[in-house]
Amino acid sequence: MEYVFSDRVKALKPSAIREIFKYAAMPEYISLSAGNPAPEAFPKEAIEKISKELMSENPILALQYGQTEGYIPLRNELKKYLKETHNIGNDYDELIITSGAQQIADLLSKSLINEGDTVICEAPSFIGCLNTFRSYNAKLCGIPMETDGMNTELLEEALKREKNIRFIYTIPNFQNPSGITMSLEKRKKVYELAKKYGVMILEDNPYGDLRYSGEALPSIKSFDDCGLVMYAGSFSKVISPGMRVGYACGPKDVIQKMVVCKQGQDVHSNMWAQVVCYKFMTEYDFDAHLAYLREVYTKKQQLLLSLMEKHLKPYITWDPFEGGLFAWCHLPEGVDMRDFCNKAVERKVCVVPGTAFLTDENDPCDAFRINFSTPTDEQLQKGITVLGELIRDILKK
Amino acid sequence: MEYVFSDRVKALKPSAIREIFKYAAMPEYISLSAGNPAPEAFPKEAIEKISKELMSENPILALQYGQTEGYIPLRNELKKYLKETHNIGNDYDELIITSGAQQIADLLSKSLINEGDTVICEAPSFIGCLNTFRSYNAKLCGIPMETDGMNTELLEEALKREKNIRFIYTIPNFQNPSGITMSLEKRKKVYELAKKYGVMILEDNPYGDLRYSGEALPSIKSFDDCGLVMYAGSFSKVISPGMRVGYACGPKDVIQKMVVCKQGQDVHSNMWAQVVCYKFMTEYDFDAHLAYLREVYTKKQQLLLSLMEKHLKPYITWDPFEGGLFAWCHLPEGVDMRDFCNKAVERKVCVVPGTAFLTDENDPCDAFRINFSTPTDEQLQKGITVLGELIRDILKK
Repeated sequence: MEYVFSDRVKALKPSAIREIFKYAAMPEYISLSAGNPAPEAFPKEAIEKISKELMSENPILALQYGQTEGYIPLRNELKKYLKETHNIGNDYDELIITSGAQQIADLLSKSLINEGDTVICEAPSFIGCLNTFRSYNAKLCGIPMETDGMNTELLEEALKREKNIRFIYTIPNFQNPSGITMSLEKRKKVYELAKKYGVMILEDNPYGDLRYSGEALPSIKSFDDCGLVMYAGSFSKVISPGMRVGYACGPKDVIQKMVVCKQGQDVHSNMWAQVVCYKFMTEYDFDAHLAYLREVYTKKQQLLLSLMEKHLKPYITWDPFEGGLFAWCHLPEGVDMRDFCNKAVERKVCVVPGTAFLTDENDPCDAFRINFSTPTDEQLQKGITVLGELIRDILKK
Repeated sequence: MEYVFSDRVKALKPSAIREIFKYAAMPEYISLSAGNPAPEAFPKEAIEKISKELMSENPILALQYGQTEGYIPLRNELKKYLKETHNIGNDYDELIITSGAQQIADLLSKSLINEGDTVICEAPSFIGCLNTFRSYNAKLCGIPMETDGMNTELLEEALKREKNIRFIYTIPNFQNPSGITMSLEKRKKVYELAKKYGVMILEDNPYGDLRYSGEALPSIKSFDDCGLVMYAGSFSKVISPGMRVGYACGPKDVIQKMVVCKQGQDVHSNMWAQVVCYKFMTEYDFDAHLAYLREVYTKKQQLLLSLMEKHLKPYITWDPFEGGLFAWCHLPEGVDMRDFCNKAVERKVCVVPGTAFLTDENDPCDAFRINFSTPTDEQLQKGITVLGELIRDILKK
């Protein structure tokens, strides 16, 4: 049997990082390539208790069909939470619960993108969403990142130049993979440009609560006075990714189309997980939990920084990062990045080659991504030591 | 802000049955319009126990990221189960866990359908999947149903006539909405025709285990000797729909593309639900549970049949149905079906107008769908009595 695939899927290449993840899953390898929360970051006892109560007191709520838009108490709680803590949400906005924030990228793409339309992305950016946009045959236009967010002059040039731009995709806080946080000035500038050119913004904020130093900045959505921004939030990094619960707050008209698409995609998200998230937000001290997470990850970030100072400097440098789960490391001139990553795998340490995060994987790239949330302190110590030995060995030759 | 939607979403009309479901949700209305399992059909105690053990013994398994293809022990168990009980699965097949069987229709459509390509459907058919195909701008070609399945002569004509047919969508057991079961002869004929014309089959089997009379028939997938059939199974009707766990078994090459699409859609399905399904299948007596479900629903089916005999006959007739959750009722000539359904709502009883299930909602239709799994015995009694009074009142005029 010969299978004929759709044009959109024919164009999808198997991910360049799949091979590395294969090694990363083997116990004898040290994986600095994942993006998983630390196991100690899950509020296990609380979820165990909530789940037990739910399944004994109201199992039908968890087991029966639910509404496509999401569990109403969770939707209402999130609307309140977003308004109070982030000044997000207007009369013309609505909120949908999704199966992880990944589904927001999919539903928005499905609702807005015709084949060949353009999506403007930060370069580098989160590979998961880039692949979602690619799966709708979008043309990706990458805007280079600077230390305070994307280059807004190049953004305006792109807004003038590109045809049928459907939205600008940005992760303003501790971006994946670069760790960069967009400055307040640039947040305002990006919103202003989007408004000027009538282009929507998909603001993805999975790591916003994981800030370890510096001051919190307002979201782009908080400036939104005309229904231009779709804000994507997620419980994956603050409660649990295995639950697959995300939420989008954006203009009603667009959310309504996303609801129709979700109806045909998975009908609704897992009910147990939605109720657990709701009860965790309302019956537990969510702020205290977030403070605990910051404590856990600040320690890991500090350990990573001290290890990089000791073993990688001065050959390998990194962009400053005030939160999130990743460090973005640059190799010295003349060192081939892919070769470095392959050699690291040979020494049983996995990092992600930076090219994986580019809109065009063939563009030059001197960087690789290190994750510090998943490995244990011992693994982090061993892994960074090996990377330090490797760069010295390469430069010696 | 003016929003410009994609062509595929622009074409999606709000469902004609949304209005009816609005009434059906109100407590003073009797809903015969849902498709929910009976609340007493959920294995509540078993799930409560499994969930408690899982969350106390191995919470990280439920809370951490999982694999896109699905939880490996569940995949292996399902492969074994399908092989042993349904003779399904060959060397060239693979199995993926999905977020409900609805996602199978979406992932297969995304992998195979270019805009304007044709999907052959039974007419009538399940509105959820028809809308999924529509959301990829597929052209739907409906093949009229006969009491033993779709008209295979018209199917062959369509296979000759239509361009770019990507698959034939069928629900061979107790079809939604018609309740019809495809005969063994027609199953073989449909497979033979699909093979002759090189067209895939999506065999959707959510109700197969819910047979209340007659003999079980082999699945079309069990004839598959060349990787032509994608078989869709679901836990929604036999364990719980709120969990959103389905599974597809079909040719590896196609499953691989579906995995890539799922990665960009929801990364993976809820882990708690996958583990619960696995443990329920392996640590409990799944066959005994299915026997219990058949007992519960046989009683409800028998009650419905006796009520229809008493109140609807001879004016309203129904197609014979040996299982599933639905009865497909035909109105006498000269009675307008939409008018009948609207008048039923006025009398606070909700049924689904048959046009909702057609590939073209403007085609003539004399039928409406009754669900007998969700209402209580009292609601069923009251609802059918009202429908009987209504048809008599209409015919009196």
